[in-house]
Amino acid sequence: MSDISTKRLMLFSGSSNLELAKSIATELGCGLGKVKLDRFSDGEIYVKYLESVRGADVFVLQTCSHPINENIMELLVMIDALKRASARCISAVMPYFGYARQDKKISAREPITSKLLADLVSTAGADRVLSMDLHAGQIQGFFNVPVDHLTAIPLLASYFKEKNFENAAVVSPDVGGVKRASKFADRLHASLAIMDKRRPSHNVAAVLHVIGDVRDKSVIIVDDLIDTAGTVIASAEYLLTEGAKEVYVTCTHAVLSGQACQRLREAPIKEVVVTDTVPIPEEKRSESLTVISVSSILAETIRHVYADESVSELFEGDNLL
Amino acid sequence: MSDISTKRLMLFSGSSNLELAKSIATELGCGLGKVKLDRFSDGEIYVKYLESVRGADVFVLQTCSHPINENIMELLVMIDALKRASARCISAVMPYFGYARQDKKISAREPITSKLLADLVSTAGADRVLSMDLHAGQIQGFFNVPVDHLTAIPLLASYFKEKNFENAAVVSPDVGGVKRASKFADRLHASLAIMDKRRPSHNVAAVLHVIGDVRDKSVIIVDDLIDTAGTVIASAEYLLTEGAKEVYVTCTHAVLSGQACQRLREAPIKEVVVTDTVPIPEEKRSESLTVISVSSILAETIRHVYADESVSELFEGDNLL
Amino acid sequence: MSDISTKRLMLFSGSSNLELAKSIATELGCGLGKVKLDRFSDGEIYVKYLESVRGADVFVLQTCSHPINENIMELLVMIDALKRASARCISAVMPYFGYARQDKKISAREPITSKLLADLVSTAGADRVLSMDLHAGQIQGFFNVPVDHLTAIPLLASYFKEKNFENAAVVSPDVGGVKRASKFADRLHASLAIMDKRRPSHNVAAVLHVIGDVRDKSVIIVDDLIDTAGTVIASAEYLLTEGAKEVYVTCTHAVLSGQACQRLREAPIKEVVVTDTVPIPEEKRSESLTVISVSSILAETIRHVYADESVSELFEGDNLL
Amino acid sequence: MSDISTKRLMLFSGSSNLELAKSIATELGCGLGKVKLDRFSDGEIYVKYLESVRGADVFVLQTCSHPINENIMELLVMIDALKRASARCISAVMPYFGYARQDKKISAREPITSKLLADLVSTAGADRVLSMDLHAGQIQGFFNVPVDHLTAIPLLASYFKEKNFENAAVVSPDVGGVKRASKFADRLHASLAIMDKRRPSHNVAAVLHVIGDVRDKSVIIVDDLIDTAGTVIASAEYLLTEGAKEVYVTCTHAVLSGQACQRLREAPIKEVVVTDTVPIPEEKRSESLTVISVSSILAETIRHVYADESVSELFEGDNLL
Amino acid sequence: MSDISTKRLMLFSGSSNLELAKSIATELGCGLGKVKLDRFSDGEIYVKYLESVRGADVFVLQTCSHPINENIMELLVMIDALKRASARCISAVMPYFGYARQDKKISAREPITSKLLADLVSTAGADRVLSMDLHAGQIQGFFNVPVDHLTAIPLLASYFKEKNFENAAVVSPDVGGVKRASKFADRLHASLAIMDKRRPSHNVAAVLHVIGDVRDKSVIIVDDLIDTAGTVIASAEYLLTEGAKEVYVTCTHAVLSGQACQRLREAPIKEVVVTDTVPIPEEKRSESLTVISVSSILAETIRHVYADESVSELFEGDNLL
Amino acid sequence: MSDISTKRLMLFSGSSNLELAKSIATELGCGLGKVKLDRFSDGEIYVKYLESVRGADVFVLQTCSHPINENIMELLVMIDALKRASARCISAVMPYFGYARQDKKISAREPITSKLLADLVSTAGADRVLSMDLHAGQIQGFFNVPVDHLTAIPLLASYFKEKNFENAAVVSPDVGGVKRASKFADRLHASLAIMDKRRPSHNVAAVLHVIGDVRDKSVIIVDDLIDTAGTVIASAEYLLTEGAKEVYVTCTHAVLSGQACQRLREAPIKEVVVTDTVPIPEEKRSESLTVISVSSILAETIRHVYADESVSELFEGDNLL
Repeated sequence: MSDISTKRLMLFSGSSNLELAKSIATELGCGLGKVKLDRFSDGEIYVKYLESVRGADVFVLQTCSHPINENIMELLVMIDALKRASARCISAVMPYFGYARQDKKISAREPITSKLLADLVSTAGADRVLSMDLHAGQIQGFFNVPVDHLTAIPLLASYFKEKNFENAAVVSPDVGGVKRASKFADRLHASLAIMDKRRPSHNVAAVLHVIGDVRDKSVIIVDDLIDTAGTVIASAEYLLTEGAKEVYVTCTHAVLSGQACQRLREAPIKEVVVTDTVPIPEEKRSESLTVISVSSILAETIRHVYADESVSELFEGDNLL
Repeated sequence: MSDISTKRLMLFSGSSNLELAKSIATELGCGLGKVKLDRFSDGEIYVKYLESVRGADVFVLQTCSHPINENIMELLVMIDALKRASARCISAVMPYFGYARQDKKISAREPITSKLLADLVSTAGADRVLSMDLHAGQIQGFFNVPVDHLTAIPLLASYFKEKNFENAAVVSPDVGGVKRASKFADRLHASLAIMDKRRPSHNVAAVLHVIGDVRDKSVIIVDDLIDTAGTVIASAEYLLTEGAKEVYVTCTHAVLSGQACQRLREAPIKEVVVTDTVPIPEEKRSESLTVISVSSILAETIRHVYADESVSELFEGDNLL
Repeated sequence: MSDISTKRLMLFSGSSNLELAKSIATELGCGLGKVKLDRFSDGEIYVKYLESVRGADVFVLQTCSHPINENIMELLVMIDALKRASARCISAVMPYFGYARQDKKISAREPITSKLLADLVSTAGADRVLSMDLHAGQIQGFFNVPVDHLTAIPLLASYFKEKNFENAAVVSPDVGGVKRASKFADRLHASLAIMDKRRPSHNVAAVLHVIGDVRDKSVIIVDDLIDTAGTVIASAEYLLTEGAKEVYVTCTHAVLSGQACQRLREAPIKEVVVTDTVPIPEEKRSESLTVISVSSILAETIRHVYADESVSELFEGDNLL
Repeated sequence: MSDISTKRLMLFSGSSNLELAKSIATELGCGLGKVKLDRFSDGEIYVKYLESVRGADVFVLQTCSHPINENIMELLVMIDALKRASARCISAVMPYFGYARQDKKISAREPITSKLLADLVSTAGADRVLSMDLHAGQIQGFFNVPVDHLTAIPLLASYFKEKNFENAAVVSPDVGGVKRASKFADRLHASLAIMDKRRPSHNVAAVLHVIGDVRDKSVIIVDDLIDTAGTVIASAEYLLTEGAKEVYVTCTHAVLSGQACQRLREAPIKEVVVTDTVPIPEEKRSESLTVISVSSILAETIRHVYADESVSELFEGDNLL
Repeated sequence: MSDISTKRLMLFSGSSNLELAKSIATELGCGLGKVKLDRFSDGEIYVKYLESVRGADVFVLQTCSHPINENIMELLVMIDALKRASARCISAVMPYFGYARQDKKISAREPITSKLLADLVSTAGADRVLSMDLHAGQIQGFFNVPVDHLTAIPLLASYFKEKNFENAAVVSPDVGGVKRASKFADRLHASLAIMDKRRPSHNVAAVLHVIGDVRDKSVIIVDDLIDTAGTVIASAEYLLTEGAKEVYVTCTHAVLSGQACQRLREAPIKEVVVTDTVPIPEEKRSESLTVISVSSILAETIRHVYADESVSELFEGDNLL
Repeated sequence: MSDISTKRLMLFSGSSNLELAKSIATELGCGLGKVKLDRFSDGEIYVKYLESVRGADVFVLQTCSHPINENIMELLVMIDALKRASARCISAVMPYFGYARQDKKISAREPITSKLLADLVSTAGADRVLSMDLHAGQIQGFFNVPVDHLTAIPLLASYFKEKNFENAAVVSPDVGGVKRASKFADRLHASLAIMDKRRPSHNVAAVLHVIGDVRDKSVIIVDDLIDTAGTVIASAEYLLTEGAKEVYVTCTHAVLSGQACQRLREAPIKEVVVTDTVPIPEEKRSESLTVISVSSILAETIRHVYADESVSELFEGDNLL
């Protein structure tokens, strides 16, 4: 009995970012797969796929948004069920890969939770991971399965290019993010500056200051994610005292926890530009918050992965890190 | 350079059941190890051990109580940090091992989350697991590391023995728990009965009924865990209509989610007897709820594991499943 | 060089149940694959596939019948040879998955041989397992590869349905099998009863008794497997003294070791109904032993697995556990 | 809580070679550990250790004698139970490591059963292996755990040295065993000859002949194991026709299956010298069969392994391969 | 979305044997894949594939020639990059699998580097290995992935058959290679002889001598590899003193390190016949060195592996070990 | 048989940095372990330990200096031999962990060789890794075994503190190293500046410039490693044109390949300060090159690891990253 092999594409969504999953499904023209996601009264997760996944190339979308541990566990349970239901290939689509702060040990006896997360996803049964703007490129190496690592930087940079600033500076809010800011500045042919905290001499408190010139410039503070927004707001205020003409803020992952949104609205920031890798509910939205969707990038990537076509050549290589 | 090898015992507690951990530490006379457990504003877990664990035999206590997924993730992160901090041997002490409902596939395309949980704990780096009254003994086989599987059944049975019932029946609230109820009945030399739901004929709704005799008897409904308490309350009411003299309820793991405690208080149940494998906050306690601590069992077990002494001979083998 | 992928199905049989394998091959219309299975004079197993298996989806049938350890080793050797001969996907078809008694630790310092067996099959190289009526559903979780778990319960229940009993009771021969008996009773809309051994008071020998009503009923004792038949025969005799009208016995796996067959023939049992997951040689057969073949269930499942079609929808989901 | 670490040595025996195990225990002065080894009526193995093994350095002796597959499965089950009972370190002592014939693929679609066996032993949970005169030294590389590989060659050679042959030749019964025979000849300062089967020209049957000179010599045919003895007997007869003065046969592993013993007794062989790595029951023994025990070698090795002392320096390195 | 699966074949070459890779690509008609292989100034390897390998069946050719450790590391890096770039199946084509000398422990505290090499290749991500004339067949068992093990023996034997020797002997240069020499002799219907080093009596230096008859014969010394050529040259000289008519030398892997080529040219050897599994640069070539290419064997094998067709049936099974 | 456990420390050195290993051994007072490290004529590595390592806690020192691939393979072979020789715990001491450039994918179809290296070291059998100033902290997460990650930054900073610069600036030679430079600046209470390459507008070549103020300052360019020295020399020249008073260069890992040393000597750099993680042969040394040894840091760390004492508390936590 010899037959021609076939394959089929299925896309399922966890609870974390249903809207993005729907957009991707629409762009793919494939419809979201049917899966029951439930909680028992004691908080345990229940998952059941309502259609056969046997032999399918399945993509499961789950982002590491709040509540992050719930979402991670849900993803792991979803992958376990797919594995046991004989999916041929399971791709975890994690637009925002969380636990970025813990991708290395800062001091003794800490975990490396990013690596743990990578191990958990592999243990559950994922054969491949798709993610965007990892906090550090090395996280790709935390996996032994292939990782398609995309970036929203070109998308965000394009948005700012259209503003045609006369004189722009890109600012990294701390020394850890200089490389990312530098790439962003390259695309805008803008100058680069860095926020730094330093003690001028011993026994003196550290003070915020900027390295590089921002006077009379349109400043864009660039980061991979904004959580409490404390750092960017302090930076924005400082940069204006240093003579910046206006301050914009941009990042890929709009974690925006706690009072971040309100504080950003009240801060002297002209516009905050983010993507939808993390869902932004209506109450967090405002006029000064611009959300650009990454659904096309993800849909195109999934289409190419499924078709065994080069992902790096997508968008002329711009969206691959 | 040749030296004598030494070893030391350390006990740390996750957030889920600090009170039980403290009791165990007191019984061990070793003090709880110092660890910082925190949450970032976006909900990510932060762990840092505040004392050296290098070369130590470390026991980490975390139970699968509400919020279960948070607690599981916290345990995994704690284990990862211990592994990277060079603990010699890491024992996960999980008095209540959760996701009991999902220890097998009931229908197609479901996960086996109990197995997943076992794999996650091993992946994070646990070398051994201690647990009590697993929902099914087979869960021990989900691990390839040694599992010391203890039981609170003798503890609970002793409590009821002292009541000196003249005529007692032990009732399993469903067909799945008959084996456990049978063991309990053995210890009390009580008769056994089983609650069953069955349709007398086609197209007729299933009705609750009891198999076995309960008339004029002191009835003890026995289960491994009580979650919403719906089943035990319905059973208690039914058993009283069947002529039972009085109804007691007992279980090891008092999950008691939602309105379970209030509903139990209002139900025609004389006393609910549970252990503290799951923490029971003050507001859930009442006069009719008796809580018996398993801290001695766990402390003795930890002491024996650390000393490489037989655990099965503890309490004359009574507490080992 | 780009080409269309093809696939082909091959079915091989170990020594344990050649007849069942042949039936399945006939139903699949694919013929049994040619393999040389031999023993050296010192008892070592020799395996050689006589046709190419390169790139094929191979199913190997081996059941855990007597001599069980020989059959297990033969299966492992067969899988190793397939792996090294570049089979694309190796499915171990194990209608009866043995070592059921040892799927958990009953007392200290025992193995969990069911789990060991699962690990051995994975280590040898199996990518998937097909089995029927596992002693406990949790055994599915012993594997990290997909397990298609089928059941012969509907097949056996259908057989009894046609007898149109006026008043039937399904009896579990011990407290461990109540759940299975309960499912069987559901299908027949029969009542449920359970055999129990209990000591009425301290220092008194345990006596067999039945929980539930069997008087004047046609009783069907249901189990997953019958080995020595001691328990079912004692149960049958007891149930008749309790007023049962007649006693039938049924199970999926007819292990029937030692004198089981003769003793069953001589026992007051009207009919014993089993399947052919374990081969039943001519000398064990008799008029009162009915054997129903599971070959259609297995053939259909293999066909669907090979074609990446849903297995749970086979037979309207009836045959999937 | 800081304490001094202790360790203890335990030796258990499987069913295959209890006599050898007892001799080793006597030499170690430690007594054989108590373990219940049983068979259920359907042939399944049951294992239960009757004393605590927690934290012990456990050595399990099992040789690959007839019935080989039973013995292998028993060893695996014994190891699984030790692992789950928290033994600290499990050493599989396998004096004869079976499936020697299948340590490589001779033709297409064969297994490499020796490697499979190594994988099974590791999967079950062995941390170390002790073995003697592996069919090929490469088998040591089949393991990733340490293997202490001993040899009985010096023991056997010493025996022959005392015979003070005037003119001796060592003969390898086939081209595969020349290296072993060569080492043996070295120790006796004897010449070397090899049995070969070759077709003098095309379409002519292969005939046995000897390469090297045996005329008027005391010939010792050396092999690692003797199974059916067919080859050695044919060789012995041929060598006598070629003028050999007398023929001795020696090997480490006396598999001696089928009619081997009787045929050896009837063959023109002066003496057969073997060890007790494989048990030789009374009925197989005869005057012309000399059995030399390896118990001292194994006991000394176990003692050194347990004490972390060099094994290679035992017996001046003579017994290590 | 259901589609027909396709596949494609790609062949890449490491730095070690580009010429052989090109020949194979020509025979396959597929062209060599484009990959940038570079060294940083500190000697680190840089690899970048210049065309998409996503979903492809990729074969990477790298032989273990000088500089062997560089070549091994390059192969591992190439495999890692393929794995991360989503190649579907990665086959390491290693015509000469190095570290042959260390496929077992000769004395205490040595590595088994052949096994280590097998583990490294698997760890990097190879799904399959193709190799030729492994030093020992057991090396195939060092892998758990399928190994297609080919041989150049028939190719070399055919070459010698055409010489139509009247009276030929095949000689193994040491006792370890007798099996290989024996197979070679079989194909030529030649007699077999073995070089041996032995001490005639105690305290006397070991002397080289030949076991078997070579007088007036055309002698072919056969080995799997020739490194320094010291042994074969000494053998050739000795054999001529023993009356051999002429001496040929042949092997599969022409490692030929140091002054081997020059020494062979100057030795009394009529012709040295080797293959191109190891590249032979122009300066090592001479009139008396015949190089036969294995490119057809490898190309045909790759074609069959890719097409899921039997490899053992290639060349009538002659080229498979 | 119960005994007190002992342990012993052994230190072995690979070929890469024998001098450093000797210094460490001297500080430890334990002597370097005896091991034979050799090359066969074809370049294969041969390793043999000349003293027993059974049961020992073994530390193997090998740094990733030139020839890097040789050194890596040698380390792997050394670890394999230790594992097979029954060392209890194997710690790979890799002062410079190479392949820093390839710790993430910069463009498509590249390897992540740092991760591969981590996997190879684990596969060979290392239980622990000690390293210094990893190129990125995330590399620690590439391992699942514990990594003790030390830093030479405090050592280097102390050296510069003693110069008592009046006005110092620390410069990162590129945007990727800002974080490291920032930490260095912290210790010296110096200001921070960053070298950047940027295109002022489209179609204009990128030019080097500095972000931050260096005029009239003593400038220290800080990096983790210096390879060809091209970037630091260009930076030094540029900084002097920008008004820097004097330029120093410092790094942990003095790779210094090609003409780096000569070029550094000729560059307008006052002093180059490095450590001996990479050996610096006599011909590379000069007056302006200061080498500070890390042997005390490594010796103290090894002593603490062996004694199960906290490493982070060594040197007041200063030397742990």
